[in-house]
Amino acid sequence: MPPIDHDRWTRVRQALARNKLDALVCRLPEHVVLLTGYYPNIGASVVLFPAQGDPVLILPRFESDLADRGWAADRRFYDTWQNRYPAPLDNLDRLLRQAIAERGLANKAVGYEGGFETIAPNCLSGEPTGVGADTLDLLKRAVGGDALRDATDLLYELRGRKTAVEVERIRLANEIAALGMAVFKEHSVEGSREVDVSAAVESTIRRLAGHGGSRFVFAWAQVTAGPATDVNWQYPLASDRKLTRGDLVVIELGVVVDGYWADLTRTVTVGPANDRQREVHDLVSRAQSASLAAAAPGRSGVEVDAAGRRIIEAGGYGEYFVHHTGHGIGFRYHEPIPFVAPHSTHTLAEGHVHSIEPGIYIPGFGGCRIEDTCHVGPNRGTFLASTSFGLD
Amino acid sequence: MPPIDHDRWTRVRQALARNKLDALVCRLPEHVVLLTGYYPNIGASVVLFPAQGDPVLILPRFESDLADRGWAADRRFYDTWQNRYPAPLDNLDRLLRQAIAERGLANKAVGYEGGFETIAPNCLSGEPTGVGADTLDLLKRAVGGDALRDATDLLYELRGRKTAVEVERIRLANEIAALGMAVFKEHSVEGSREVDVSAAVESTIRRLAGHGGSRFVFAWAQVTAGPATDVNWQYPLASDRKLTRGDLVVIELGVVVDGYWADLTRTVTVGPANDRQREVHDLVSRAQSASLAAAAPGRSGVEVDAAGRRIIEAGGYGEYFVHHTGHGIGFRYHEPIPFVAPHSTHTLAEGHVHSIEPGIYIPGFGGCRIEDTCHVGPNRGTFLASTSFGLD
Repeated sequence: MPPIDHDRWTRVRQALARNKLDALVCRLPEHVVLLTGYYPNIGASVVLFPAQGDPVLILPRFESDLADRGWAADRRFYDTWQNRYPAPLDNLDRLLRQAIAERGLANKAVGYEGGFETIAPNCLSGEPTGVGADTLDLLKRAVGGDALRDATDLLYELRGRKTAVEVERIRLANEIAALGMAVFKEHSVEGSREVDVSAAVESTIRRLAGHGGSRFVFAWAQVTAGPATDVNWQYPLASDRKLTRGDLVVIELGVVVDGYWADLTRTVTVGPANDRQREVHDLVSRAQSASLAAAAPGRSGVEVDAAGRRIIEAGGYGEYFVHHTGHGIGFRYHEPIPFVAPHSTHTLAEGHVHSIEPGIYIPGFGGCRIEDTCHVGPNRGTFLASTSFGLD
Repeated sequence: MPPIDHDRWTRVRQALARNKLDALVCRLPEHVVLLTGYYPNIGASVVLFPAQGDPVLILPRFESDLADRGWAADRRFYDTWQNRYPAPLDNLDRLLRQAIAERGLANKAVGYEGGFETIAPNCLSGEPTGVGADTLDLLKRAVGGDALRDATDLLYELRGRKTAVEVERIRLANEIAALGMAVFKEHSVEGSREVDVSAAVESTIRRLAGHGGSRFVFAWAQVTAGPATDVNWQYPLASDRKLTRGDLVVIELGVVVDGYWADLTRTVTVGPANDRQREVHDLVSRAQSASLAAAAPGRSGVEVDAAGRRIIEAGGYGEYFVHHTGHGIGFRYHEPIPFVAPHSTHTLAEGHVHSIEPGIYIPGFGGCRIEDTCHVGPNRGTFLASTSFGLD
């Protein structure tokens, strides 16, 4: 069992005190990671984190070895499917009531994950789990309905500022993502299909399980090429289209390593870039550097956005930079804090981790985006990974 | 645009009538597939399916081409992120209110997905979306709070009996899964790590995008080997452990093809099987055949389970067959209808699609499971795919 991340636990306790909560009860995989360092495989684990005393981790018996990778000592196992279906919540119900009674939390102010619209997956992303009506009823019965509080804002706030331990975990995810990026560059050649490039990057990253002590490594490599890049900037879905000479090729790469995420984007060309491709790529790259130089504690999300956006505007492409400059990253692929954009209300703080990802998307010509993950240190921001290729 | 699956639409309308509902409003990707044949990439699409008239599909503008793969003609696009974060639900709100007003559905009985605890992912499984408080509030405002009904049971019931079109889609997913199984067999050799086998199967399947007209193909290959197979029967997580001679190797393979799922399991050995491995594998295989022979409309889930379980019991391994024989499959990796187990309350019906997956797990020795997907036809059940290898 690795050492407890005391910094994280202290912050959680402080947040509970500030919010006059007696405990948190969390089930989303990202929050089980946040509170205990353990990344659930099937997403059926629950953490009861009281303001006083250590947390109780309730989990399926068969994930015992995964929980060893986290730091919760008080673990209570339940059996899930045993000739029964759907999942018997009864076992979980009993253990949770018991833990709540033991810790004197019945009818106390207990925060839960009430407002999570987009659900982060567990390892087995084929079957992620959200907080639905059944869990909510179960919590209400366990805690006492009037005492239960929606703790969404508190959880997002906690997630926004990373501890040193967390930054190192996110750095590892970035390092692994960067190794995948080298494979992206290598496979972006004439005749490859978009989906071949995706598969090559994803399987390379999947095979890195074990790298840097990791257990679970998974990637979603979204590759799009050619004219479609002009609109496919959101979540491009790799197709079976073949890359052809002159194409712009964009990869949007999400990587999760034991529950900590990286989010990187690169744009290359198939064969040598033409003049306009080079002009656009250069502007985006310079915009990214300018936003990075502006990223420091105390600077606003608006300023950091403007530093890069100004360069793209000066180059005459302002209208084609249609999205934000950055979003938080860490316990999920996309997190709301800090937001780096013209409409941001956030101020950067030490411990924030966010993307810097300017892009230019010109109808009929194509798109170009470069994205890295910025860690805001005591004085300035730095990228958590780098790659060694540019345009050919 | 492919032709409308009229059989599906008729059934939906009948279910609405039976349940005295004036419409359904659905957002989970599996239900967008169910109602329109279109598999959302980011999971931000909504279908309003009225009892009278055609459905309205509201979706992000950039998924227009994906929606072309479905059969909803009335499509209304909204813009998602444009320099704003989190996602502006306002656009969706406006379009949904408008559609509800047009169709005269304000304050009518509208069913929604109120009880889905386990969330099926969209294509971009890194960020699946569930129905959270914000969506529920939005629906209440759009429909009128008192009129909104939880339609979970209705949706599960609809999903249980597949149409002919749906069976063909599930057959394609099974065919693709079987191609991945050949790669599993080939890579299960001394010196491979579990995660290498997973990556080989997953990337092979990922590259099959386009096969049989498919667009989005994704696999989760959960590979476990050696003594750990005795407990790793639930959702084994491939590790970096190397396969060694004499190992049992089990793959639990989930595959999704444009929103339709397959679920297969195979067990092999590294090198020739020993006598006990052969005895166990043979029993499991015979149990599977017996359950398949019992699967027919009108037979109970209890009977189909017992047909195979009896064989394993007669072989002296009854106590080691610790789980159900089968579960529904189709719009998700695991569905509740029909359940094939000693405690099942279901009776098989034409159109049901379910797994038959007996297994034996002996502490200290290891585990063996064989799983296929059974389609219940008018007279009997048949497997939707097959593989050509057994034990060495």
